[in-house]
Amino acid sequence: MIVVMRTNATEEQIERVAERLKQVGLGVHLSRGEFRTIIGAIGDDKKVREMGLEALPFVEQVLPISKPFKLVSREFREEDSVFTVGDCAIGGKQIVLMAGPCAVESEEQLLEAAYGVKAAGAHILRGGAFKPRTSPYSFQGLEKEGLKLLARMREKTGLPVVTEVLDRHAVDLVAEYADILQVGARNMQNFQLLRELGKLDKPVLLKRGMSATIEEWLMAAEYIVSGGNSQVILCERGIRTFETYTRNTLDLSAVPIIKHLTHLPVIVDPSHGTGSWRWVPAMSRAAIAAGADGIMVEVHPYPEKALCDGAQSLTLENFALLCRELEDVAAVLGRSLRKVMS
Amino acid sequence: MIVVMRTNATEEQIERVAERLKQVGLGVHLSRGEFRTIIGAIGDDKKVREMGLEALPFVEQVLPISKPFKLVSREFREEDSVFTVGDCAIGGKQIVLMAGPCAVESEEQLLEAAYGVKAAGAHILRGGAFKPRTSPYSFQGLEKEGLKLLARMREKTGLPVVTEVLDRHAVDLVAEYADILQVGARNMQNFQLLRELGKLDKPVLLKRGMSATIEEWLMAAEYIVSGGNSQVILCERGIRTFETYTRNTLDLSAVPIIKHLTHLPVIVDPSHGTGSWRWVPAMSRAAIAAGADGIMVEVHPYPEKALCDGAQSLTLENFALLCRELEDVAAVLGRSLRKVMS
Amino acid sequence: MIVVMRTNATEEQIERVAERLKQVGLGVHLSRGEFRTIIGAIGDDKKVREMGLEALPFVEQVLPISKPFKLVSREFREEDSVFTVGDCAIGGKQIVLMAGPCAVESEEQLLEAAYGVKAAGAHILRGGAFKPRTSPYSFQGLEKEGLKLLARMREKTGLPVVTEVLDRHAVDLVAEYADILQVGARNMQNFQLLRELGKLDKPVLLKRGMSATIEEWLMAAEYIVSGGNSQVILCERGIRTFETYTRNTLDLSAVPIIKHLTHLPVIVDPSHGTGSWRWVPAMSRAAIAAGADGIMVEVHPYPEKALCDGAQSLTLENFALLCRELEDVAAVLGRSLRKVMS
Amino acid sequence: MIVVMRTNATEEQIERVAERLKQVGLGVHLSRGEFRTIIGAIGDDKKVREMGLEALPFVEQVLPISKPFKLVSREFREEDSVFTVGDCAIGGKQIVLMAGPCAVESEEQLLEAAYGVKAAGAHILRGGAFKPRTSPYSFQGLEKEGLKLLARMREKTGLPVVTEVLDRHAVDLVAEYADILQVGARNMQNFQLLRELGKLDKPVLLKRGMSATIEEWLMAAEYIVSGGNSQVILCERGIRTFETYTRNTLDLSAVPIIKHLTHLPVIVDPSHGTGSWRWVPAMSRAAIAAGADGIMVEVHPYPEKALCDGAQSLTLENFALLCRELEDVAAVLGRSLRKVMS
Repeated sequence: MIVVMRTNATEEQIERVAERLKQVGLGVHLSRGEFRTIIGAIGDDKKVREMGLEALPFVEQVLPISKPFKLVSREFREEDSVFTVGDCAIGGKQIVLMAGPCAVESEEQLLEAAYGVKAAGAHILRGGAFKPRTSPYSFQGLEKEGLKLLARMREKTGLPVVTEVLDRHAVDLVAEYADILQVGARNMQNFQLLRELGKLDKPVLLKRGMSATIEEWLMAAEYIVSGGNSQVILCERGIRTFETYTRNTLDLSAVPIIKHLTHLPVIVDPSHGTGSWRWVPAMSRAAIAAGADGIMVEVHPYPEKALCDGAQSLTLENFALLCRELEDVAAVLGRSLRKVMS
Repeated sequence: MIVVMRTNATEEQIERVAERLKQVGLGVHLSRGEFRTIIGAIGDDKKVREMGLEALPFVEQVLPISKPFKLVSREFREEDSVFTVGDCAIGGKQIVLMAGPCAVESEEQLLEAAYGVKAAGAHILRGGAFKPRTSPYSFQGLEKEGLKLLARMREKTGLPVVTEVLDRHAVDLVAEYADILQVGARNMQNFQLLRELGKLDKPVLLKRGMSATIEEWLMAAEYIVSGGNSQVILCERGIRTFETYTRNTLDLSAVPIIKHLTHLPVIVDPSHGTGSWRWVPAMSRAAIAAGADGIMVEVHPYPEKALCDGAQSLTLENFALLCRELEDVAAVLGRSLRKVMS
Repeated sequence: MIVVMRTNATEEQIERVAERLKQVGLGVHLSRGEFRTIIGAIGDDKKVREMGLEALPFVEQVLPISKPFKLVSREFREEDSVFTVGDCAIGGKQIVLMAGPCAVESEEQLLEAAYGVKAAGAHILRGGAFKPRTSPYSFQGLEKEGLKLLARMREKTGLPVVTEVLDRHAVDLVAEYADILQVGARNMQNFQLLRELGKLDKPVLLKRGMSATIEEWLMAAEYIVSGGNSQVILCERGIRTFETYTRNTLDLSAVPIIKHLTHLPVIVDPSHGTGSWRWVPAMSRAAIAAGADGIMVEVHPYPEKALCDGAQSLTLENFALLCRELEDVAAVLGRSLRKVMS
Repeated sequence: MIVVMRTNATEEQIERVAERLKQVGLGVHLSRGEFRTIIGAIGDDKKVREMGLEALPFVEQVLPISKPFKLVSREFREEDSVFTVGDCAIGGKQIVLMAGPCAVESEEQLLEAAYGVKAAGAHILRGGAFKPRTSPYSFQGLEKEGLKLLARMREKTGLPVVTEVLDRHAVDLVAEYADILQVGARNMQNFQLLRELGKLDKPVLLKRGMSATIEEWLMAAEYIVSGGNSQVILCERGIRTFETYTRNTLDLSAVPIIKHLTHLPVIVDPSHGTGSWRWVPAMSRAAIAAGADGIMVEVHPYPEKALCDGAQSLTLENFALLCRELEDVAAVLGRSLRKVMS
């Protein structure tokens, strides 16, 4: 950590900062420039972050040097983490496709969707049982009934199931039915939920918050991993910007950056990332080309009748077309949609 | 709601959309322009919002006309809502000051802070017992012990207490000790928490989410009010933008807009809104001048020793200076920090 | 255009708006909903945009229906526009690579860069002679001398040249030496420059402004095309967001959207789009996979000695590796880096 | 400047960076932490900024310590700069009001506007002769004829005149007629224009770019001042964010920050800052309360007939009301709309 003093800071003030750093056990390294003194604090950055030194009027700025995340970093673990779900390996050479409707609406709808996406090539079935909705007057999901339907589909189709958990008290319930527990964008910093998921022994799909920096996102992952559950899959789903033509701005540069900074798998959700089915195929191809380990797409047998997010759902036909394209893009990177020996 | 067809839409496609609108009980109003047809749907906008008509390839866009919120709107209730807490009236002519440390750290710290802010002119004591922290390795609050300390300070100083609730299962616990329950920016769309607060008979301070539009913020308020609790106080606390000089960008234009769109009181948090004690006095004055019903500020007896957010905390001296300035600004708008007859 | 009246608007006020619309020659279509009246204005949207009807206190909102751009729209011209530069066809089946240093620094540097990128597979040489720099104290380019060096390299290597023009009075000078004139992000709304380029008979590469919406970007293109020059190539180069890990956030969803809305070619600049050479290969692959017609990359023989933007420049070796990857990605979309018969 | 090495950097790599720093005349200060080495470069930060050290794969990050601006900084000049225009002093105790129509439309319109704003209390007349418009099909201003009308109004009313200059070649022309030359948001980084204005001996009103950080804005001011013209007035006019309820998000925190970092006057434009006349009075009061030296507002005798930006223009009546409120807010800060002895 670097403490930058104001240009007119006195010797006494510099000393006062140095003393406080030493008190908490940090090494101190003074560097007097032409105009100002900067103080290097050697040791645990975390301590300096919490000292509130910027509260002192003669301190200009406190600059962190090391990253605040540890367990999720490439420096902690150099090789890629690979997690197994059903017979998929997420994070290895296989490109994993998660597909299904935004919300579980009925057995009939889910059945048609599940068999459809499986036939097209999906590896994992997605579907929401608990739906966080902007309006209190919108459909909020089938809840427990939805979970049961998802589990029944897994039995029928053999596809593992990913679904969202909204609340720390529902973690056990959802874990009973799901193979992967999803944390939605709105809950990325629901730290109590993250702590609860840290106690689990199942993969967690952690979506990036709508306005979360990459660093904050990784700190959210750090919550889960530091709790004891290392199976975190990151999911880029678009960030909020001034552009209104898309629902969000899909930040694909997050993919290579995540690969550089961490050992965790990262997938992309182009459905929420763009908000319209029209842009999903192009952005799915781009995600795989950028190095993502998979994608999660909304697919509905009849999008214009969907109770939720119909506008961004692919039809089964369009999803099948997309799968064929993705196989080719994967091949360019030496990967495949089929199970492969890593 | 207006459905804009693509320019090359056929008569049959136009008819198909019109039929679907009629099926859900909406009136249909066709308007054929030079280049394209637009279809007005007369009746409940909510129904059209959920129909997913954008999923149809011949639909260009669906444009909402009416606002999605109802109970919180000025149109539903024309006069300002005023809520009483202790002997303050929030939303009336009185300007309400909520002040105190970011986190409750110890009885000693809270005691000094509480007596200090009271002496300076604060009406309500703030302090966090449950702290949502970006890092799992940071101080997370004293939890229940913190709540008890807050209640003890209320007894001693007579100041009502506002504190954050993080989880729907903690609502009853927090409500036992606090006079106002705060929903933090990260929880603005924790809909299950909002629903739970809707069952309460105590004021809720609802902070704007870091990347929430004004409309989404009001929909979050609508969740609480539609659940039966009309006592919602909105709190602008800065939004996330590209500017890095401040922690957030305080959006003061939200103040007059909220006053225009709703009947609810709105206050401003310049501490989180800027992230530095240096800008808090100027932005507090600006908030009151813009028409806010009060402010919430972080004040700490020794900011550079704070366990949390020291950089943005005012000292007791600076807070006392600020209170005097605010009294003068309030007077310009015919308001006062003292209790006033509305 | 749709004029939404306030809920309490009187008949007289509705009539007043309708009258003003008729005065400018627009058809009027009243639609009385349960709560409010909306007025459809039939005819030229542009007229309504400029009427300032929102200035009337009884008007809630004015909603545009049609897009404000015309000549650049797919509706105006259905087939893709393809422009020929040297022996490249931009906008057809060929993927075009523009590469070279940020700034022209010396003959020696440019020579090594030009032969290097050509050998690797680039089709067009880029290099800045006039450099817009954030700091007045930074290197500002070789200016006319730089243009001459670029032209000399074209003679030697056969590569056409793209370079930036900063000022409308320099258009003729730059056009004398360059094959494609680039408008930088900061000048996207330098309307006088755009008008001047509209008089030219050479392709213009129009970069998206740092905070420009897609619609504003297309309006900038409309300036050039409406002036008589239809050869506009759009270039996505990242938009400004809250994320600080990258210099900008590359908005690849702009690629399929541009293809949907317009007939113009669109390329991507992953160097400015990310700000670091580390992410350039992944984002270049993603750009082509998303459907871009080419990319523009910064390549420098010795990036760490570059006078400008070294951090985001690829070495010649890394660029050569990238070209091979891109050929494979292009093939998936039925395209190629080689000249192809459209 | 601080160079942060990657954790696995070798001694040789550290040495290589140190050598390069020494070559350009910088002092080198190594600090070896537990995990990584950081290298302090002592001397001119500008040199390191331009070295492109991030291009080296073993360099993690280059962190600037000192601010890149010099002449505009408080450290360069401690007391506030005050510029005189007509008989106003901008930057001192007087609060300066600049008001008038968005565009000069006709003599009649300008006459009514000029006398109206003067009667209400304005000190300076604003009005656009050259209008940068998003659409090529919109009214682009009366150009030279507009300048003449402005000069005529100055003669009649005694009000000095501020108007926008779009192009470096028009600087002399505009300077012939105007008392203050305005640089619009879109031109904040038109460096050639800034250089030209640096040669002038007249005040320049420099608007913040739509997506400009405070630092970039000050660097733009530095261009003008380093060219020899120290009379720069900064104008906050809103930045682009995700919020769509307002045209821009007015960043009032920029006001105290500018006062902290520089000695230059700063004013606020709440008309562009919000995009609607409805929010202008509240945000004008807030601007003055935040410490701004004045405001610039759009006022039109008949906003709903304005050729440009009618939606955000105040009527003369509303402007007169606003002036009375502002006098009271100014008084709270010990300032006044009347000429005052500094």
